[in-house]
Amino acid sequence: MKSRLAGRRGGGFLDEMNSLTDSTTTVAELKTRVLAFVRERDWEQFHSPKNLSMALAAEAGELMEHFLWATPEESKAIMADAAKRQKIADELADVVVYALGFANATGLDVAAAIETKMIANGKKYPVEKAKGRSEKYDEL
Amino acid sequence: MKSRLAGRRGGGFLDEMNSLTDSTTTVAELKTRVLAFVRERDWEQFHSPKNLSMALAAEAGELMEHFLWATPEESKAIMADAAKRQKIADELADVVVYALGFANATGLDVAAAIETKMIANGKKYPVEKAKGRSEKYDEL
Amino acid sequence: MKSRLAGRRGGGFLDEMNSLTDSTTTVAELKTRVLAFVRERDWEQFHSPKNLSMALAAEAGELMEHFLWATPEESKAIMADAAKRQKIADELADVVVYALGFANATGLDVAAAIETKMIANGKKYPVEKAKGRSEKYDEL
Amino acid sequence: MKSRLAGRRGGGFLDEMNSLTDSTTTVAELKTRVLAFVRERDWEQFHSPKNLSMALAAEAGELMEHFLWATPEESKAIMADAAKRQKIADELADVVVYALGFANATGLDVAAAIETKMIANGKKYPVEKAKGRSEKYDEL
Repeated sequence: MKSRLAGRRGGGFLDEMNSLTDSTTTVAELKTRVLAFVRERDWEQFHSPKNLSMALAAEAGELMEHFLWATPEESKAIMADAAKRQKIADELADVVVYALGFANATGLDVAAAIETKMIANGKKYPVEKAKGRSEKYDEL
Repeated sequence: MKSRLAGRRGGGFLDEMNSLTDSTTTVAELKTRVLAFVRERDWEQFHSPKNLSMALAAEAGELMEHFLWATPEESKAIMADAAKRQKIADELADVVVYALGFANATGLDVAAAIETKMIANGKKYPVEKAKGRSEKYDEL
Repeated sequence: MKSRLAGRRGGGFLDEMNSLTDSTTTVAELKTRVLAFVRERDWEQFHSPKNLSMALAAEAGELMEHFLWATPEESKAIMADAAKRQKIADELADVVVYALGFANATGLDVAAAIETKMIANGKKYPVEKAKGRSEKYDEL
Repeated sequence: MKSRLAGRRGGGFLDEMNSLTDSTTTVAELKTRVLAFVRERDWEQFHSPKNLSMALAAEAGELMEHFLWATPEESKAIMADAAKRQKIADELADVVVYALGFANATGLDVAAAIETKMIANGKKYPVEKAKGRSEKYDEL
């Protein structure tokens, strides 16, 4: 990542173009990026687990606000509106930035946590019982 | 990722050990993992942007619940309790899984969205004005 | 309210029956009830505006969890299931209890705040423009 | 309430002054007020339990946003700032309006639900065990 960022920051016509994509960016690279932003501003002092969990929940609320009165079907159409799509991408980014900030502040490994949780979820929701059903595991 | 997962699934002594870590896992690999879980269970029918934004916000609420009555300082100590730390890692995983599920369902690129948003945030919160301050950009 | 509560607490056959109803209970009576509960447990020390706003948001998340995967129509049917209805009533109570606790801790008058806000909302959403439409006021 | 509202609406010098206060307003009067606002705009079609629970959670997130980076102590000082206090009162109003809207849409009695829940809470958190402690009931 270092060279990629260095290149981007080196300026030139690529400046401010997106150089990060999901296919080529590790979670650790995103975490480093978030941490650098926070450190530059001396914001680690505010980033307790409590505060970051609040900020994350508040941003999740803002993401949700775009879909309050839409039906689930209509919420798909909202994503096809370019201006709204950009705002929603911004809200999603805010959510993930705080999730990564939380991981930075607490030393958690996000990918490992996801793997652990998905193995547990796989047991709670075995394919043969859960297929095509939206009930909670204790109602299956 | 394919070979890594194939190896893991192939069983043997590595089964159920964490093979994913932030340093070695791209966002796209996590998205693929989440998508496979959802598809196996035929759950895409429930995964509208509206529903996923709700699920994400609900999980963010659960993460936050661990810190309700703690001071910011005390919330750091909570992370040092091994049993609580595991529960909190699980909640963080849930949050990120739904964020990735949202990205899957809507075709958003999380890393690109974060990069775009962080460039915008850098302008809203220039280092010289924002350093060491927690005010919102319109109060700086 | 004093005599009503006194009567209830006096025991006898009315014990644990609901004596409060929306028609006969003022907001102040509910606030007093919540405050008494908090004071008896010496919990005011934890009830800062910050903490109460978190608890309120966390409970709102729990209320929402009952409806994550339902369509809006299906969410009405959920309310007709007696066991779920009772759980949902409990979650709604939790939300309002924390809202009242917030008002207690901050000295806000809930009814006055609602009146003020609804007058403002009436101007943002005039009947002739907003009728039958779910758009935000800046999109009407 | 009818005569009070009629008087207020009748205009004259009282117009737009707050006539509702917690001491003199029943929960049912607030519910009626909220319902009238919704009906005038033909918004009941959007007010499924699912949608209202989302709106409530989103508003709870907005209330919380005022306190993200403050310590619990600092959050008390925020309430003493007149401009912020008014905004926070507005957010609290939004939360309670949606809670009452939820009760309207589902036929729940808020005061009765609170009484039932507080009796249950009293058993989960007996004074002698819970006094001065912020742990969850299963950790007391």
